[in-house]
Amino acid sequence: MTDMSTDVNVMINSSINDSIDSSVNDENDTEKLLKPRNNFASYSNENINVRFRQNVSSQSVVETLSSNLRRLNVEEIPPGATNFLSTNYESLDYDPCENHLLQDEERKKGYKFVVKKNFARWFIFLLIGICTALIAGFVDISIEELTSLKYSCLKFYVDQCVTKHCLWLPYLLWLALNFAPVLIGAILVAYVEPVAAGSGIPQVKCYLNGVKIPRVVRIKTLAVKTIGVICTVIGGLAGGKEGPMIHSGAVVAAGISQGKSTTFKKDFKIFQYFREDHEKRDFVSGGAASGVSAAFGAPIGGVLFSIEEGTSFFNQSLTWRTFFASMITTFTLNIILSAYHGRLGDLSYPGLLNLGKFETIPYQIYEIPLFVIMGTIGGLLGACWNHLNYKITCFRLKYIKRKWLKVIEALVIAALSATIGFTMIYFLHDCKPLGQDPTKFPIQMYCNEGEYSAVAALWFQTPESSVRSLFHDPKGSHNDITLAIFVVLYFFLAVATFGLSMSSGLFIPSLLIGSAWGRLIGSGLAKLFPNCVVLNPGKYALLGAAAQLGGVVRMTISLTAILIEATQGISFGLPLIIVLIMAKWVGDFFNEGIYDIHTQMTGIPILPWEAPPLSNNIYASEIMSHPIVTLNTVENVGHIVELLKCVTFNGFPVVDPPNSDEPEIHSYGRFRGLILRSQLIVLLQNKIFNKNPEYWEKSLSIKLFRKEYPRYPTIDQVTISEEEKTYMIDLRPFMNPSPYTLQHSATLPRAFRLFRALGLRHLPVVNDTNEVIGIITRKDVARFRIWKHRGRMGLDELLITNKI
Amino acid sequence: MTDMSTDVNVMINSSINDSIDSSVNDENDTEKLLKPRNNFASYSNENINVRFRQNVSSQSVVETLSSNLRRLNVEEIPPGATNFLSTNYESLDYDPCENHLLQDEERKKGYKFVVKKNFARWFIFLLIGICTALIAGFVDISIEELTSLKYSCLKFYVDQCVTKHCLWLPYLLWLALNFAPVLIGAILVAYVEPVAAGSGIPQVKCYLNGVKIPRVVRIKTLAVKTIGVICTVIGGLAGGKEGPMIHSGAVVAAGISQGKSTTFKKDFKIFQYFREDHEKRDFVSGGAASGVSAAFGAPIGGVLFSIEEGTSFFNQSLTWRTFFASMITTFTLNIILSAYHGRLGDLSYPGLLNLGKFETIPYQIYEIPLFVIMGTIGGLLGACWNHLNYKITCFRLKYIKRKWLKVIEALVIAALSATIGFTMIYFLHDCKPLGQDPTKFPIQMYCNEGEYSAVAALWFQTPESSVRSLFHDPKGSHNDITLAIFVVLYFFLAVATFGLSMSSGLFIPSLLIGSAWGRLIGSGLAKLFPNCVVLNPGKYALLGAAAQLGGVVRMTISLTAILIEATQGISFGLPLIIVLIMAKWVGDFFNEGIYDIHTQMTGIPILPWEAPPLSNNIYASEIMSHPIVTLNTVENVGHIVELLKCVTFNGFPVVDPPNSDEPEIHSYGRFRGLILRSQLIVLLQNKIFNKNPEYWEKSLSIKLFRKEYPRYPTIDQVTISEEEKTYMIDLRPFMNPSPYTLQHSATLPRAFRLFRALGLRHLPVVNDTNEVIGIITRKDVARFRIWKHRGRMGLDELLITNKI
Repeated sequence: MTDMSTDVNVMINSSINDSIDSSVNDENDTEKLLKPRNNFASYSNENINVRFRQNVSSQSVVETLSSNLRRLNVEEIPPGATNFLSTNYESLDYDPCENHLLQDEERKKGYKFVVKKNFARWFIFLLIGICTALIAGFVDISIEELTSLKYSCLKFYVDQCVTKHCLWLPYLLWLALNFAPVLIGAILVAYVEPVAAGSGIPQVKCYLNGVKIPRVVRIKTLAVKTIGVICTVIGGLAGGKEGPMIHSGAVVAAGISQGKSTTFKKDFKIFQYFREDHEKRDFVSGGAASGVSAAFGAPIGGVLFSIEEGTSFFNQSLTWRTFFASMITTFTLNIILSAYHGRLGDLSYPGLLNLGKFETIPYQIYEIPLFVIMGTIGGLLGACWNHLNYKITCFRLKYIKRKWLKVIEALVIAALSATIGFTMIYFLHDCKPLGQDPTKFPIQMYCNEGEYSAVAALWFQTPESSVRSLFHDPKGSHNDITLAIFVVLYFFLAVATFGLSMSSGLFIPSLLIGSAWGRLIGSGLAKLFPNCVVLNPGKYALLGAAAQLGGVVRMTISLTAILIEATQGISFGLPLIIVLIMAKWVGDFFNEGIYDIHTQMTGIPILPWEAPPLSNNIYASEIMSHPIVTLNTVENVGHIVELLKCVTFNGFPVVDPPNSDEPEIHSYGRFRGLILRSQLIVLLQNKIFNKNPEYWEKSLSIKLFRKEYPRYPTIDQVTISEEEKTYMIDLRPFMNPSPYTLQHSATLPRAFRLFRALGLRHLPVVNDTNEVIGIITRKDVARFRIWKHRGRMGLDELLITNKI
Repeated sequence: MTDMSTDVNVMINSSINDSIDSSVNDENDTEKLLKPRNNFASYSNENINVRFRQNVSSQSVVETLSSNLRRLNVEEIPPGATNFLSTNYESLDYDPCENHLLQDEERKKGYKFVVKKNFARWFIFLLIGICTALIAGFVDISIEELTSLKYSCLKFYVDQCVTKHCLWLPYLLWLALNFAPVLIGAILVAYVEPVAAGSGIPQVKCYLNGVKIPRVVRIKTLAVKTIGVICTVIGGLAGGKEGPMIHSGAVVAAGISQGKSTTFKKDFKIFQYFREDHEKRDFVSGGAASGVSAAFGAPIGGVLFSIEEGTSFFNQSLTWRTFFASMITTFTLNIILSAYHGRLGDLSYPGLLNLGKFETIPYQIYEIPLFVIMGTIGGLLGACWNHLNYKITCFRLKYIKRKWLKVIEALVIAALSATIGFTMIYFLHDCKPLGQDPTKFPIQMYCNEGEYSAVAALWFQTPESSVRSLFHDPKGSHNDITLAIFVVLYFFLAVATFGLSMSSGLFIPSLLIGSAWGRLIGSGLAKLFPNCVVLNPGKYALLGAAAQLGGVVRMTISLTAILIEATQGISFGLPLIIVLIMAKWVGDFFNEGIYDIHTQMTGIPILPWEAPPLSNNIYASEIMSHPIVTLNTVENVGHIVELLKCVTFNGFPVVDPPNSDEPEIHSYGRFRGLILRSQLIVLLQNKIFNKNPEYWEKSLSIKLFRKEYPRYPTIDQVTISEEEKTYMIDLRPFMNPSPYTLQHSATLPRAFRLFRALGLRHLPVVNDTNEVIGIITRKDVARFRIWKHRGRMGLDELLITNKI
């Protein structure tokens, strides 16, 4: 019956493979060191006949499986490779398990429970909003106070020493004041919680995409992140506090919604019904939005961020709650900061990033080409920045592996920052009259009486204040040569800083670089057309900032909303959009956004938005993982224990055992459902065996499973006596009785859509008669990736490796 | 094997059914006239044994099926019922059919085709942006010119007649000037294209949700809509031009992307590769966003609208293109309108709805409770508005069925509008000094020299200008009593107008009502606290407008973005958000948004965001449609023809015929794929039978199917000779070989998620051995709906009927 169609498939299939392979061969791309496709093809044609039964000794099980796994592992991946996926990352499970326990709970609790849950959700989102704002307020006020202290102290010594010729003193002081916080921050990150390094945005993105990044939403991470980011900014590094704020919001959300903390070993026994990946993800998405909202005072931008970066399946009520949390955050933070600045009633501090308000910015139609050019420059510079950062990260992966080396590296960059700043202040004579001073700590240096050094003004404040100065200072406040030198130096400083073992974001440095070159262009234009009123350098500083940031991160609509909200310049929306579109287009021609680059370098199996094109000739039977391990509907306890000990799989199809008199070597038996490793462990831990009927009756509830979420014990922590190993266990009430499955003849895009839209973790593949023949996991889908290189395209198949 | 688990299922299942039924009985809700659940239950337990084979005569086929269908049809649904789904609406098919023809095309065209398609997409979005802006510009300029003419003429006669005591003359003239355009608009809508009635937002929403509303995206509809909306505004009805703009954008998008027009019988043979539901939907989503962008000058709001109302599966690159189109629209429209107003360089007219720019609006923390109260009032008034409109619509469904009656009705409302306006002007003496006049046509009426009638000012301009006046007029421009009377009268006028046989939106009327009562509250507060500077009536007018609109339409985040963008008042975001959240919460307590109410009254099977809660006890086997009709993989042509003639189904599972020696009454044979009615018709039309191998070889391509999209011929238009009827046809290269399927034991939420996230049309249900036992369609999923009534909840099962 199927002969004809199968033949056609195979024919089409092999011919396309050929054409792709030849196109790959044409391309002398150095990154295509490895051709896993052939390797894989030979693997998938292998005759599969691994089946675990009680009579298979555990030793042989281990050997069979590990030999199979080894074929997919490649020990040596060059540092900086982007063509691999790491097996160290597991998937989150967004597909609810509709087993009998869940139905039981629903039946018992009824609609009142639905209403209660709904209220609890709103309440949690309220708490998320408030707590995120509190953390943001703490970070902001600490930074404000400590930097004031630092720069007032420096100013004092500089002012003293200029006349006394002891400028080495403030320089050393500057070094010391940079070293101390950077040392604390770097040690915290390197030794206590490495996942707190960087901005945290890629990690949150991956989490929302469905990848479990270990420890990413733990309270310890939050603590390190919060202190670390304060250290970064005080340490004078070219890093911002905005990205980390987003990560903090996500952690807060994950913490509050679960009603317990592993770090503090405290279970409040509340919100237990939210203890599953699916619910937690929703809260984290709200937390990330709150974080954006706190960082930029941009509630709409926050919601758009969580939609753009996070949600695969958009849900109106979730978005609505997210919006609510964002708003609460902005509002609370506004109250805190307004009170701190002594203007409580005004509510004029909606976010951490205060870029100052732009009054109406007029622009004329003939400026549109200028906007396009600004965007193009931003795209080019952004692509260049990303490439340099990529190279530096490769270097780091190769040489800076030890923890103490990472700390040293951070200190070196801190020293470099101070040195560059000091050298610029020392050598550049850029004096402006006092009075219209844009800085809190004007320094005279070698300027005349009543003047101050404009260079020192750029360095003797937080980068954020510098951005504000560049946006809003009146025409002529900044010397062109100063700005030009500053752009170049700060560009390299920022490239070197991102990726250090410090908590730091790149929004502010990018904005600062961009606003500096933007202002440079603006002031050049103003000199070319001195009579033109609309050519305001501040406006071009804003456009440059947008272009640079857009060129680096390549976010689109959310970034537009964030910038519009942060500058309150809605009438300026169109120019911003033009600039951001151009920056993205130009940048995407050369490489990917910086977050994506870093995600790829760690091999995180993140799923893109769409399946690769022209992949309809790749079938589920080709991409699925096999051999797999299946369980019978009623299974021997000892067998389960052995199995969990020797394989690392997380999902096991439950099958009716195949009929012994009709051997089918390609199938594992009729598919009945899917059970997870975590569920099996809870069953074993609580001794829910068929021989224990009284236990079964009394206390068997879905709560047992929630109690352990999300960190289940390992199989070695569960003690099962020898007698218990002879018991049987009926898996049917606990397994997911009807997970989504896919026919072996389905295509890769079909599997991809299912994974992406529904947030799956396991997708069993069945044959024509509904017998399991394999299982598709996130990595099997994510490994197919389209590569584009200067207009050419092809299909790439990533390597799967156990290297981080 | 399955016995135990099935027993458990049945037990749980029946017990929950009981509890739900009893809770429904408790509720003496008049709307629960019908209990389809019992009816349905008896139906689904029926013994199913309908199988179509060649030897079944077509007569008996018709009888069997129609007798089954009739059981689901209820002839008499009371007008205004909301508990039914109409069978008149089909689903769109967003799931691509990955058959051999598609693979063939991919193989032939390669990656160049992918790049070309991508460029074409961007180009189409550019065109959509420009064309939507052109239409918006045409509508706006026509309305501007014609209303100027109308009111200047009226002003002339009023000014003349006040002294000469001939005020009946301008009154009659007003009537006539209202009648003429309303007559044209009503006749166009009633006789030419009824789907152009109303705002079109619900229709676009349904289209994006996946329901095929007949003729909704046709060029004829666009023409009627455009002229109709001009007539509405000129006719002085309480309707706006914003909603129709969104619909227009959607039609433009659908038209351009298909490269052909059925109305003009012209096929440009371009963009043929976009001729499928999935691609078309993406363009329509962009068009709707462009429409919002044109209507409100709100590109971000537009994108949010298309996300909030449209997309189920969010896609970053689609959103990015949508954003591009929105921006192009705003920009083009800005150029057009700026040029029209003679200020080309300024670019200060981003959208049709020009609410005037708010300078910074200060607010104090103690005003927050006031914002909450404003939102609550908006929610209450909105719910009240919706309820009244619902009642009026019921009345219309019952009594105003004839086309001429609809025209008369529109004329009556037009007369009423003029009469109310004239009466108010005549009786209310609200005189303000000239000079600070907010209106283009000030009328003196009985006021003193140098004064004008503030009442006439409200009526003698478009509603949009009135909103602007209420937002921006200085304190004391409006008399409280005038406003109070105006609110009441306009409230009822707007209620009566929405749902007329005219193209008209409800944004502007709602904003006008809201701004009037908002200003009333603001002016009251200003009188209570005369020394308080921040209590600006214009600010409260804006909040009132937001509250009223939010209370009526219940949109959330997109509405916030739209209002912020339209008023350029970003610093005022927080108060707007508070007001909109309150309005939605309060309103949702009483009833649904007006669009949802109208959607329900027409029985459109729209899918909500989430499956009803506590429905995990409802299984796929309960909700699926059966009996169904299946086809064999190689099928007789005559049989297919007979089948298509006598059943209305659109999707047919293709099966291996069941083994004759093991009769299985509950299955239709092993599932092999799914073929659509439209595909079968194209196959028959092109005589692609197994006997025609030369045809098969030469010209068989996916283009054949695209040529006919979207309006395929009916089976009666295809002529098949008697000899041809004996031929066989191999369906395997054409069918979808691996559509998503569901196990019979899967739950309703699982089916729902699949439908919602992937935009399915048919979902075959299979048993444990992958044999088809039924099919789930959109209506089967949409019929389960949660009802909430003052805090109580329950599960409702809608009736399916053939009534519109």
